[in-house]
Amino acid sequence: MNKDILTDILKAVADGGLDIDAARQRLADMAMEDIDFAHIDHHRSLRKGFPEVIFGEGKSAAQIVGIMERMQLQEQVLLVTRVDAVKAAAVLERFAEARYDTEARMIVWQRAPLPKTGLGTILVVSAGTSDIPVAREACLTADAMGNVVKSVFDVGVAGIHRLMAHRSLLEEARVLIVVAGMEGALPSVVAGMVSRPVIAVPTSVGYGVNLGGLTALFGMLTSCSSNVAVVNIDNGFGAGYMAASINQP
Amino acid sequence: MNKDILTDILKAVADGGLDIDAARQRLADMAMEDIDFAHIDHHRSLRKGFPEVIFGEGKSAAQIVGIMERMQLQEQVLLVTRVDAVKAAAVLERFAEARYDTEARMIVWQRAPLPKTGLGTILVVSAGTSDIPVAREACLTADAMGNVVKSVFDVGVAGIHRLMAHRSLLEEARVLIVVAGMEGALPSVVAGMVSRPVIAVPTSVGYGVNLGGLTALFGMLTSCSSNVAVVNIDNGFGAGYMAASINQP
Amino acid sequence: MNKDILTDILKAVADGGLDIDAARQRLADMAMEDIDFAHIDHHRSLRKGFPEVIFGEGKSAAQIVGIMERMQLQEQVLLVTRVDAVKAAAVLERFAEARYDTEARMIVWQRAPLPKTGLGTILVVSAGTSDIPVAREACLTADAMGNVVKSVFDVGVAGIHRLMAHRSLLEEARVLIVVAGMEGALPSVVAGMVSRPVIAVPTSVGYGVNLGGLTALFGMLTSCSSNVAVVNIDNGFGAGYMAASINQP
Amino acid sequence: MNKDILTDILKAVADGGLDIDAARQRLADMAMEDIDFAHIDHHRSLRKGFPEVIFGEGKSAAQIVGIMERMQLQEQVLLVTRVDAVKAAAVLERFAEARYDTEARMIVWQRAPLPKTGLGTILVVSAGTSDIPVAREACLTADAMGNVVKSVFDVGVAGIHRLMAHRSLLEEARVLIVVAGMEGALPSVVAGMVSRPVIAVPTSVGYGVNLGGLTALFGMLTSCSSNVAVVNIDNGFGAGYMAASINQP
Amino acid sequence: MNKDILTDILKAVADGGLDIDAARQRLADMAMEDIDFAHIDHHRSLRKGFPEVIFGEGKSAAQIVGIMERMQLQEQVLLVTRVDAVKAAAVLERFAEARYDTEARMIVWQRAPLPKTGLGTILVVSAGTSDIPVAREACLTADAMGNVVKSVFDVGVAGIHRLMAHRSLLEEARVLIVVAGMEGALPSVVAGMVSRPVIAVPTSVGYGVNLGGLTALFGMLTSCSSNVAVVNIDNGFGAGYMAASINQP
Amino acid sequence: MNKDILTDILKAVADGGLDIDAARQRLADMAMEDIDFAHIDHHRSLRKGFPEVIFGEGKSAAQIVGIMERMQLQEQVLLVTRVDAVKAAAVLERFAEARYDTEARMIVWQRAPLPKTGLGTILVVSAGTSDIPVAREACLTADAMGNVVKSVFDVGVAGIHRLMAHRSLLEEARVLIVVAGMEGALPSVVAGMVSRPVIAVPTSVGYGVNLGGLTALFGMLTSCSSNVAVVNIDNGFGAGYMAASINQP
Amino acid sequence: MNKDILTDILKAVADGGLDIDAARQRLADMAMEDIDFAHIDHHRSLRKGFPEVIFGEGKSAAQIVGIMERMQLQEQVLLVTRVDAVKAAAVLERFAEARYDTEARMIVWQRAPLPKTGLGTILVVSAGTSDIPVAREACLTADAMGNVVKSVFDVGVAGIHRLMAHRSLLEEARVLIVVAGMEGALPSVVAGMVSRPVIAVPTSVGYGVNLGGLTALFGMLTSCSSNVAVVNIDNGFGAGYMAASINQP
Amino acid sequence: MNKDILTDILKAVADGGLDIDAARQRLADMAMEDIDFAHIDHHRSLRKGFPEVIFGEGKSAAQIVGIMERMQLQEQVLLVTRVDAVKAAAVLERFAEARYDTEARMIVWQRAPLPKTGLGTILVVSAGTSDIPVAREACLTADAMGNVVKSVFDVGVAGIHRLMAHRSLLEEARVLIVVAGMEGALPSVVAGMVSRPVIAVPTSVGYGVNLGGLTALFGMLTSCSSNVAVVNIDNGFGAGYMAASINQP
Repeated sequence: MNKDILTDILKAVADGGLDIDAARQRLADMAMEDIDFAHIDHHRSLRKGFPEVIFGEGKSAAQIVGIMERMQLQEQVLLVTRVDAVKAAAVLERFAEARYDTEARMIVWQRAPLPKTGLGTILVVSAGTSDIPVAREACLTADAMGNVVKSVFDVGVAGIHRLMAHRSLLEEARVLIVVAGMEGALPSVVAGMVSRPVIAVPTSVGYGVNLGGLTALFGMLTSCSSNVAVVNIDNGFGAGYMAASINQP
Repeated sequence: MNKDILTDILKAVADGGLDIDAARQRLADMAMEDIDFAHIDHHRSLRKGFPEVIFGEGKSAAQIVGIMERMQLQEQVLLVTRVDAVKAAAVLERFAEARYDTEARMIVWQRAPLPKTGLGTILVVSAGTSDIPVAREACLTADAMGNVVKSVFDVGVAGIHRLMAHRSLLEEARVLIVVAGMEGALPSVVAGMVSRPVIAVPTSVGYGVNLGGLTALFGMLTSCSSNVAVVNIDNGFGAGYMAASINQP
Repeated sequence: MNKDILTDILKAVADGGLDIDAARQRLADMAMEDIDFAHIDHHRSLRKGFPEVIFGEGKSAAQIVGIMERMQLQEQVLLVTRVDAVKAAAVLERFAEARYDTEARMIVWQRAPLPKTGLGTILVVSAGTSDIPVAREACLTADAMGNVVKSVFDVGVAGIHRLMAHRSLLEEARVLIVVAGMEGALPSVVAGMVSRPVIAVPTSVGYGVNLGGLTALFGMLTSCSSNVAVVNIDNGFGAGYMAASINQP
Repeated sequence: MNKDILTDILKAVADGGLDIDAARQRLADMAMEDIDFAHIDHHRSLRKGFPEVIFGEGKSAAQIVGIMERMQLQEQVLLVTRVDAVKAAAVLERFAEARYDTEARMIVWQRAPLPKTGLGTILVVSAGTSDIPVAREACLTADAMGNVVKSVFDVGVAGIHRLMAHRSLLEEARVLIVVAGMEGALPSVVAGMVSRPVIAVPTSVGYGVNLGGLTALFGMLTSCSSNVAVVNIDNGFGAGYMAASINQP
Repeated sequence: MNKDILTDILKAVADGGLDIDAARQRLADMAMEDIDFAHIDHHRSLRKGFPEVIFGEGKSAAQIVGIMERMQLQEQVLLVTRVDAVKAAAVLERFAEARYDTEARMIVWQRAPLPKTGLGTILVVSAGTSDIPVAREACLTADAMGNVVKSVFDVGVAGIHRLMAHRSLLEEARVLIVVAGMEGALPSVVAGMVSRPVIAVPTSVGYGVNLGGLTALFGMLTSCSSNVAVVNIDNGFGAGYMAASINQP
Repeated sequence: MNKDILTDILKAVADGGLDIDAARQRLADMAMEDIDFAHIDHHRSLRKGFPEVIFGEGKSAAQIVGIMERMQLQEQVLLVTRVDAVKAAAVLERFAEARYDTEARMIVWQRAPLPKTGLGTILVVSAGTSDIPVAREACLTADAMGNVVKSVFDVGVAGIHRLMAHRSLLEEARVLIVVAGMEGALPSVVAGMVSRPVIAVPTSVGYGVNLGGLTALFGMLTSCSSNVAVVNIDNGFGAGYMAASINQP
Repeated sequence: MNKDILTDILKAVADGGLDIDAARQRLADMAMEDIDFAHIDHHRSLRKGFPEVIFGEGKSAAQIVGIMERMQLQEQVLLVTRVDAVKAAAVLERFAEARYDTEARMIVWQRAPLPKTGLGTILVVSAGTSDIPVAREACLTADAMGNVVKSVFDVGVAGIHRLMAHRSLLEEARVLIVVAGMEGALPSVVAGMVSRPVIAVPTSVGYGVNLGGLTALFGMLTSCSSNVAVVNIDNGFGAGYMAASINQP
Repeated sequence: MNKDILTDILKAVADGGLDIDAARQRLADMAMEDIDFAHIDHHRSLRKGFPEVIFGEGKSAAQIVGIMERMQLQEQVLLVTRVDAVKAAAVLERFAEARYDTEARMIVWQRAPLPKTGLGTILVVSAGTSDIPVAREACLTADAMGNVVKSVFDVGVAGIHRLMAHRSLLEEARVLIVVAGMEGALPSVVAGMVSRPVIAVPTSVGYGVNLGGLTALFGMLTSCSSNVAVVNIDNGFGAGYMAASINQP
């Protein structure tokens, strides 16, 4: 369509039916909605290259299926986050080839497994058992985006030796995701042990002055280690996505 | 410059030196930084038509003079907000035709007075004497943007009859700006008395749980009157600008 | 009733049964509760001229019906906000001519469609799919108040080109309502593209540090664009009402 | 019991069986738990003279009945706040002479109506219909404590003339209780109209930045009227109690 | 002036030059700004009967003197709060008969001492030495408003026996003002010992999580004693004013 | 396993099959995960010597049973906190010898009662009836850890004489736990009466500005008594554990 | 004095001049201010046995000297906290035998060194160099109260091995004080390594979302280690005092 | 030293002077402070490989010089952040070869320029002129750590076309740092245009509800773009360090 407009103008110039000044003016007047939109749009799918996520919370199974059917036409991978088991069952009736992960509460559909193109391993570390769902969401996201993902769960700072026991695993990773609730101290300790970037994920796990995860979040942002950056509370998906974008070749 | 690029391409098409497909491709590839930037930029000054403001806080007199000299080339009006008297004196040495308003702590420079083009009167109402600086900033901004501005100061809700005494003034205004600190209740009362839009400006005036203006801000946002919208704490300039944009023909 | 009091006094004066000084004193002593109440009240419906809204949350269908029956006697338009589908069905049994909008969760009853008296078009722009209910509430309110309303949904700042594609629509509007949750950045971007007033509506959409909409609210209040004012979180009704009050002839 | 200890010591002194120094020492050594406890306790019921309240929230009907049975032995009046209708029905089966107020969600039991001993009238004013439950709780509490209580409901600041219409009622009251949610501006306006003390009660009514009543609370604390003091959010009982304590002869 | 308008209308009615319906209409149309303003204003000074306070913070000595000169014409008492010693000296040069209290940082000017008209004694209790300035502000305000004021300073809850030692003083007071910073627990304890109303004043004294007085404020609002109401942080003036309004005959 | 590695190396050294430098290098290279883990782990159970707690909230009865079965092999005592009655019943079917405390909502399983090894008595004091569950959790924890625990419930600061009546009990305790919601003033008062350490536990009891326990927490942290330290809101378990650790011989 | 009252009553009883019932009544009526005050007061200095602290902030050197002179009469030890070097010099001119610690900003005066009576060692651990002033305040306080105090500074969680290197020191301490700003994670890690009680002290060190120490405070309160309790931000004195009270024999 | 211990044990084993079981036991007993400390320490400098930063705020020039002299012995690069010009001059007298950047308020000392070893370009984008100091801090840090750094300043979201004009620069970067105050919307927009990781840095620039940078921070954390992670407010250094760690080969 836009092509046609451009072609028409250019043909008219070539034909002499439109003089150069008038043509220049028309081109200059064509707002982004004409030329630029297509241009960007085209670039965009090349540029981002990663699956869009469907935020499942507050959507019915039918709505999720509808969106998946539309996206499936052009995507290799579909992720649906925050889906409970009942909705997931309904979705999987339509997409039998999709998988549902009970812990991560996430549906992953892939046309075919993506090749593992990441530069190195992504390691997901989590503090308490209650942090595992968020950690799993990060694992599945990074995995679906073409990365080798490893994980070490349940290594809180109150028993620091358990973390020490996995030091070589920490040192081998190219990107680390560290998930923690409560006081959120684990990313500081882990980041002090490695030189690679650490994505910290605060969780809402805890009670009282955990303040729904704000305490962990603020603790991570004031980390005394400098190779740390932070994503939103409980945002396992975002951490996995960010880690994958860091791990791109 | 951009013109030249376009002209060159079009000339080459007209000359037959560039075929249509190649030309279309080159045009499509020209990112916004080439065509669109100038295009938008040109549109922009037409579109906004209002003076840019120079935020004076944290800038030296010399820096303010420098920015004013550059902007003066193409603007009809220059506003500098949050300038203390000492800096203002220094600026006025260079721009003798500018005026400094001590209460509003604001410098206004105008090539020539703008015609009064607003649809109606803008009325600025304020609650306490300490709110006057913010109210004056709103007055001067709206005035500089070509509006007839009236004001009623010192009509707090704790003496509601003083407000009542100005009812006809309230009813005649086309846009109202209501400035209040403390509990910030004045906009609700005023908006209940008129049908025209009310821009509410919370001020940081007060102590204790005024919370630096947050209490007034939240009070205004939860107003039981519906013809109210709110700007940032102490943002007299923004209120004047918004009122002027509403009052445009 | 008040009429009678006045008439009685005046008759007594005319009859010579009450001398002028005594009459003047009695009139001066009549507090607002006597004269002024009726006076204002009469003025009020003329002045505001817009429908009262019934806040449906926490009211039973029976209560809503009761209020509507009383108000219907003197109003041309009735709006009920925040009504779920079950209650709405019960209300519509009694008011068959009312309409219920599932997305906006709003009932609109009109004696007859109001003429479109607004000065220009009101454009409602929203960022994400989850913001649509609030945006729809704004649309229906402004529409019911006699305005031509257009909308552009799902144009978030993370895909800025989608917004760019609607630039002419943005530029043609006389008032804009921009609805956004999460980081609430859309109003800044939109307001930077137009000279008309923008009413920003933060929504509670999001999780973690969206803080139930406070983050979007604060982002909008600190907007670097000056033609922006803000209403309460999720207050689509208020935004529509404020836009309509701005758009009045 | 304590009496006996004292009596024993004093008898021994009178009998010469205990010399004065030893007796003085024993008395000085008797901790408050011996002498003073009874002493204060006795004083206390005289001193406070007002009913204890039973906070019903989180207690079962059986627990409430149990406490009432114990307290009934020595009290003239029993108040139970925050009781839902189901629990109330169960309580009233045992205390047939008690009354349950559906709006205030409160049970009042009185051996016999207290004489009206208050110095003057207590007037309860409230802003919106949703504030009525809290206002009613204040009314019933003050009434049960022996006061003449009047009320004016639904006089918000967005329609200030409705308040004006009740001016004489405001001026006649000896103590005023003003209940408001949203921006909480009503106490300021009312207190500006009278010289008597105003007890302000913020309610949690509203949404968005009403912050569960904090906005109203802070607005009331920063009131520009000085004859205002504030109680906790939704604390109708406390306001009624405080007003009664002010209204004591 | 207003008188003349009324007189003219009434004369015309008496003369038969204006018929009754037309006269009634004109009277009804006269807005509050005509009749009502004077009416209320007159009532007001009778009604409030208490001195206005001049908030000295942020005002120059010259400004304070100016306001005092204007108010002095019609007031018996003038209070200026939050004045430092330097400004106070300048003010006292003009008003030699005024007194400056160094602790309360307050100027009191009285034409003649007000008679002590309060119903009973007002007792001001404070917790720590740093709370004394606020407590003194309360004392001076209540005193200037015609009350017998007593005080007990430095009786914190961490040494509860010091408070106990003043029990008869507490029990004799008709109104109590309790000033406390830190955890703000003193009002609860005092109110538990008396039946009279307690005005609690939080101070900003402390550090860390005293949060500038918010902790004391919230502690006082959640007091388990019911005869307590609260004023803004550091608002000694307001507490004195409120206590005086309670203590009025 | 680790033993084997060490033994192998050492045998090889003894055998001359590994020279000393190479052996030293191998040992130095053995990361903590080899040597140190076991080492610490071994030390750890000796060091802490106290039961691990199972946080029951959000775990199913089956999960709790599973964890208990695994831990039971090596522990003398098992505590499960925050278990409702239904889950508790299911757990007790499997562990018939465990006890469930309805108030504390806690399961305690002990192989055999621990000897009472604490240095002195731990006294748990609580303010209101609603604070009892948290207080009981503290009692049961300290008891299970080998301490003599006493308690005084329902001695709030609004009736300070009730506290006074228990002074000798307070003075005899070696460690005190003070539990309070609302304004959280009780620990200050208690700590002012004793020289022993006081562990303060804020509870979420209350409404309005109790802010879910934050007000009590902040009040306790700003206590004017110095022998006070604080644990998280509603953390009865933590207080009991901390008191036991203080009371260790 | 009180003695005299008692003696007088008892003499009168012994003399038969006062019958037993009347004497009993008089004694019962004697409020705490008579008997009990002296009684408690006497007990108190025995009970607390520890020095009062003088909070130096906001006091002049003259005021500090005045208070010290009065307290010196009956105390063995005087502590003045938060004193700058200038004031300290002035104070030391009067009290030549006092010491001023520049880091802790604290004056310590002792009649004679207290014997070391604590049960064990108190170890003060701190995270960053900026935390040292608070840590020193804790050290000096605990030392002045008769304890052997050791310290390990600059062992943050971002270099966890530095902490590990001091493990035996940690294990030998009977009470630990852990001081940390930023994310405040150090107490969790330390408490996980020992069985003894840990007093955590958050500091205001940091910027941005350290929120003046609130982030560290909340992190410490949500610690996953249970042998931790917390004092107010920057409250080194309180931590030292609490540790000393724990370490009492 | 540690070597010696190990060597001694091993020699004794080789010599037969220590049997294998005893040797194994001794090795297992050797705490981390013996073996492991050196081991980690050695690893550490290899592992992190990046300069330590000296936080200049609150340190005197002499202290900074002292730390630099000590660190200079073993480091290739030294960074000192938050140094004002006066202190910087004093430091540069001692370290003539160091450079001071006025905008970034940062001192950089390098033994020799590090080779540019980063995988790609790091692009620093900032919104307003006031954000430039933080942006410059990020630039200098990343540069000092061996990266090619480019920058685009002053491209706020209110003039989105200015950003668009730099699209190719954005697309070429391997890591992006986006610095913004006010509403903090820029990172969302930029991240929507690229697939590479974006480190977002909120600044404290603004007033009113910018809340010292919290609004920008929360806006960035709730970004609708997923390739975003965030560092602390004003933490330009941290962003540069994190970007460098991502950009490592």
